[in-house]
This record gives sequence, C-alpha cells and structure tokens, in this order.
Amino acid sequence: MNFTTIRWDHDEGALVLLDQTRLPGEIIYETCRDFQSVAEAIRRLKVRGAPAIGVAAAFGVVVGVQHSRADDYASICREVDEAADVLAATRPTAVNLFWALDRMRRTVREHRGVPAEDIKRALLREAQSIQAEDETTCRLIGEHGAALLRPGQTVLTHCNAGALATSGTGTALAVVYQAHDEGKRIHVFADETRPVLQGARLTAWELARAGIGVTLICDNTAAQVMKEGRIDCVIVGADRVAANGDVANKIGTYGVAVLADAHEVPLYVAAPFSSIDLSIASGHEIPIEEREATEITQGPGGRTAPEEVEVYNPAFDVTPARYVSAIITERGVARQPYAESLDALSHKVWEPYVTG
Amino acid sequence: MNFTTIRWDHDEGALVLLDQTRLPGEIIYETCRDFQSVAEAIRRLKVRGAPAIGVAAAFGVVVGVQHSRADDYASICREVDEAADVLAATRPTAVNLFWALDRMRRTVREHRGVPAEDIKRALLREAQSIQAEDETTCRLIGEHGAALLRPGQTVLTHCNAGALATSGTGTALAVVYQAHDEGKRIHVFADETRPVLQGARLTAWELARAGIGVTLICDNTAAQVMKEGRIDCVIVGADRVAANGDVANKIGTYGVAVLADAHEVPLYVAAPFSSIDLSIASGHEIPIEEREATEITQGPGGRTAPEEVEVYNPAFDVTPARYVSAIITERGVARQPYAESLDALSHKVWEPYVTG
Repeated sequence: MNFTTIRWDHDEGALVLLDQTRLPGEIIYETCRDFQSVAEAIRRLKVRGAPAIGVAAAFGVVVGVQHSRADDYASICREVDEAADVLAATRPTAVNLFWALDRMRRTVREHRGVPAEDIKRALLREAQSIQAEDETTCRLIGEHGAALLRPGQTVLTHCNAGALATSGTGTALAVVYQAHDEGKRIHVFADETRPVLQGARLTAWELARAGIGVTLICDNTAAQVMKEGRIDCVIVGADRVAANGDVANKIGTYGVAVLADAHEVPLYVAAPFSSIDLSIASGHEIPIEEREATEITQGPGGRTAPEEVEVYNPAFDVTPARYVSAIITERGVARQPYAESLDALSHKVWEPYVTG
Repeated sequence: MNFTTIRWDHDEGALVLLDQTRLPGEIIYETCRDFQSVAEAIRRLKVRGAPAIGVAAAFGVVVGVQHSRADDYASICREVDEAADVLAATRPTAVNLFWALDRMRRTVREHRGVPAEDIKRALLREAQSIQAEDETTCRLIGEHGAALLRPGQTVLTHCNAGALATSGTGTALAVVYQAHDEGKRIHVFADETRPVLQGARLTAWELARAGIGVTLICDNTAAQVMKEGRIDCVIVGADRVAANGDVANKIGTYGVAVLADAHEVPLYVAAPFSSIDLSIASGHEIPIEEREATEITQGPGGRTAPEEVEVYNPAFDVTPARYVSAIITERGVARQPYAESLDALSHKVWEPYVTG
C-alpha cells in the first residue's frame, strides 16, 4: 500500500494516524501524543475498522505510559488501566478494541516486579506484536479468501474493510488484493455506505490507488446491480462475530445479506479471529452503537434534512449466520454450522506469529 | 398544505415552482416565463415527482405559446410541438410527462379552425384541468389507501411521493395524510434516498410541517428497522407502472420491496392512473434514466469520492409485480394479478373530474 494507516513514531514516542475523516480530499497524518487524543481519534472515526481500532488502542495505552513519570509497577498498572478504560469507552461494537486492551492489561500484569522502563518496553512490544500479527492476519485472510474467487468475477462490498481498516491489506479487501495479485482481474462494486460514506471516501480511494477497477454505487442500488446479474459474491468485514456466526458489521450489511440471499449471491465475511467473540452465543448480545443524528442531517455543505427531525442512526446491524456463506479467517474458512466450525478453528494449533 | 408546489400565475402568464433543490434550507419560488426554463426546472429536479412533472410540463407548453406571436392554428401547432418535444426530452422514466404532453398536443389539434387566442385559452384550460384532476386524484388515492392502514401503524416510505411530488397531497403520502386526518396516528420512517436525498430533504420536511411523526433513516437502515418489527407496511409512489403491475420508481425501491418481502411486510404502490402505462406489457420496457456521477461524488460541501471514480447512477429501478401487495389508484385498489385488475380499473366508468 502506498499509504500507512497506523504508524508508531519511535523518535517521538507517538502514534501517527492517517486522518480518514479528511479522505479522499486530503492526505493528512495526525500525531497523537497522549491517550486522550487516540481515544478522540477513534471516537471521531479518524481511525476506524475493527482491526485498526484494536491496533490504535494498543498504541494508545503505550502513548499513555510512554511519557509518564510512573516509576513502579503499581503506578504503571494504574495508568494502563486508566488509559484502557478511556479507550474502551470510545466505541462499543468492535470487539477487537477490548481484545487489544485486554492484551495490554495482561502484559503489564505479567511484569510485576520488573523495572518500570522494562514494563514500558514490554507494552510497546505488545502493541507492535498486535500490529505485526494484524499484518500477517490480513495476508492470510487474503490467501484463504482469494481461493474462493474465480478470474473475472465481480465483488460487491459495503463500507471499508480494506487497508484503511487494518494495519495490513484489509480483511474483505485483502481477498480482492490477493486475487488481483494472482492475476484474477477482479472488479468491485462499492456501496457508498451512508452516513459517513466510508465506501465512497475510503474503499473507492484505496482500490483506485491499487489499480483495481471499482464502481461506486449508492447503498440503495445494490439490489439493482444484483438483479442485473453483475455481482458474483459479496465480501464484507465484521466488527464482531458471535460463536454461532452472527455478524455485526456496518449498518446496511444485514440488508445486503438479505438481498444477496434473494438473488442467490454468496456472502462472505472476512475477519480476523480477534473479531470473533466466542464468549457470546449469538448476535443478540452484541451492543450496537448509535451515533449522532448530525451524521445524517448535516453534510459538510450544510443541512440535508429539516432541523430537529427525529433520526435513527445505528452504526451497525447484525446479520444472522444463516445469511453468511462462509467466514474467512486467518486460520481458514469456516462454513455452517459456525458454532462447530469456528470452535474447531479456535482450537487449531496456531503459532504463525512466533518470530525470532 | 402550507406551501404550493406548482402554481399558475395568471397575471404574469408564468409558471411558479417551489424550487425543491433548495429545500429544506430555503423556501424559494421560481417563476418560469418560457418553456425552456420549465424544461430546465424538470431536468434539474427543481420540480420532480411523476404527477408534478406532468402538471409542470403541461403548463410549460402554455408558457411556450402564451407569449408567442403565433396567430394561426398551424403556427400554434408548431410551437406546441416544439415546446412539447423539448419538455419530453427532459426525463425518460415518468410516463406522466408524456401523458400530459400528449393531452396538450391533442388539445391544440382539436381546435383546428379556431382563433389563435381561443386555442391558447384552451391550452391553458387543459393544463388547469390536468392540475385540478391531479388534486382530486391525490385525495381519492388517500381515501382508498387510508382504508388499508390501522390506527397506530408505522409506514416506511422511500423518496418523496408527497405534496411536493404532485399538485395535491401526494400519492404515497396522501394515504398517510388521509389516515392522519382520520385520527389514525400514523408514524412514518423516511428513507433519506440517496443520491439527491429527497426523503431527507422533502419527505421529512413536508411530514414534519403537517405534524406527522417522522423518523429519518439512511437507506441502508430500512432492513434493520423491518427486522426490529417496527414497520407495518411500505408505501411508495411510482414513476411508471406496466400493464402487468411491474413498478418503476426511485432507485432503491426494488431493494426495499425485496426486504419487505423477506420480512413479510406488505408493500403498497400509490399512483394515479396517469402513471399506469397499459401500452407496455412489463417493466422491461420502461426506460431507466441514468443521471450524472456528480450527484453521488460531489456533495454540496465538496467531493465525497475520489476524482474520476467510475459511478453507476440509475435514477430508478423496476420492482417486479410479485413484490407489490396492492396498487392504490384514484379508481380503487388493484390486487394481483395486475394484468386483470388494472385492466378492469381502466374500463371503470370514471367521470369524477367533470365539473360545472
């Protein structure tokens, strides 16, 4: 990729984020020097996408302790918890956020009795591991998923589950990039994805930069494009997958899934295992974030709806597992019934990230 | 209604349109003094909605001949044809446009041998009849449709098929207004309807002004709201209905219809008989307008997608008749099979517009 979604600046001890609220018009990197600004970047969608949120939050904890005067285990513990609590409160749906913060909390607790500077270094290493694992995960998701695509096929995607949503090549789009690299000439239809237009602003942008053919459509045009027989499969990401295979993802995914089912188009979900929450039985337990009405009523150029109109703006929806043809993970492709296939993958011997 | 979508200014001999591209921010009336500016207003969506386009086009012909020096049958014929040709070329899908223009062409031909001023007066009377009939039609559609709604029900609608789309109370929204007047406490979910946001800008605006509860959602949220069990029925308008009941309407209607079917929510189409094109057997014969990419890529505040991205922007789609639970017309409610029920309604003795 010819851009970097998330980068740790070692000299500054700061987290550098590509501000995704400014794309596609401006490519601006923002430097976060305290955990509050990382939390704010997550809340305001400057960084978004389940895997990227996890990586950013982990570095948010590092930023929090990096410049602190805490010089013993207890104070570092307290500071990590404080930063993690603030970062955890930013967005409720993507489980990667909590998963990454748990790893950071666990890391500090595994270093009781160790000098403060060593704990801080361990925290940085853990965040870097989370990021490096994410890169590998994207590559593996891409490889497993690309095997499902035939040359010349056309993929519909919703929102952005690409390089901008991860530290690697993405989840849903990792599949497209990998198939493209294998010479399969894949074309993508990108839903613009209201209200924040991450499909129009982000997916169309990164695919075009990668030289992959992309056609932008309004969300409400997906059904028509399927009816015209132009879509071979749908591939989307996930913010959280329950043990039974129910998938929380960007609002609109559920509708696309029902439409895909009606048109006999397979729908694949591409997600790292860190998005799979085996602790919950079904999608009913996934908390769905509701965001401000102004995301819908107030465009950059002014109001697009009458003042004080009532708005319903859930950021995510849950697609029941029965609409999901396969879940593409770094460990392999899970098929129905997911309670069994995801469980089996979770027990797979799995140490691809161990490096020298 | 406390606004006027289309008004003939007798003193000026001009057509006054509420400029719908400026809503909801500004209420600005535009005066059209030549047929070219009426055509331009239709093309740019200053006036839109199948019935309103028909009325506006009829007055467009009147504006064309009103100020002309044509003083004999042949020259008026020529001028009417010239204006009608330009007006007919504005938008291809809504059949009301061609239906209204045909009435104007027929009117002039029925007045061969009549003094020029009388022909011009006849043309004005015909346009006024088209408008008056539209008002009556809206009221009757409202009455027939309201019988389908029970107190406290919630209706999902897509785009704007309200007072702003007609000379009366609308088609789909006429049903809501009538049920409201009958004390049925109807709530409406309004799809914002990308790309031009006629649901957000127009439907939410006119319903709120009428004191009807309305909740604005993104198009991609309709499936979720149905899944939550909050929608009792969908009511939409139509730009053209084929003899078999296939319905061309604003892009996204087809998707809503498939979703409604999957959630066992009835979908009603409300349309005047002037939108029903019995000359075509099915929706395959309905020409679908494609509009500029910039409607999607360029919001009022600037670009929302990368430059030069490929865009597919059909303004309409066709919903197969099997998804349509009923078609509500001024002559009554048609049910499947539509080839029979629409034909029967078309032969109904029907003279409600004859006035003294």
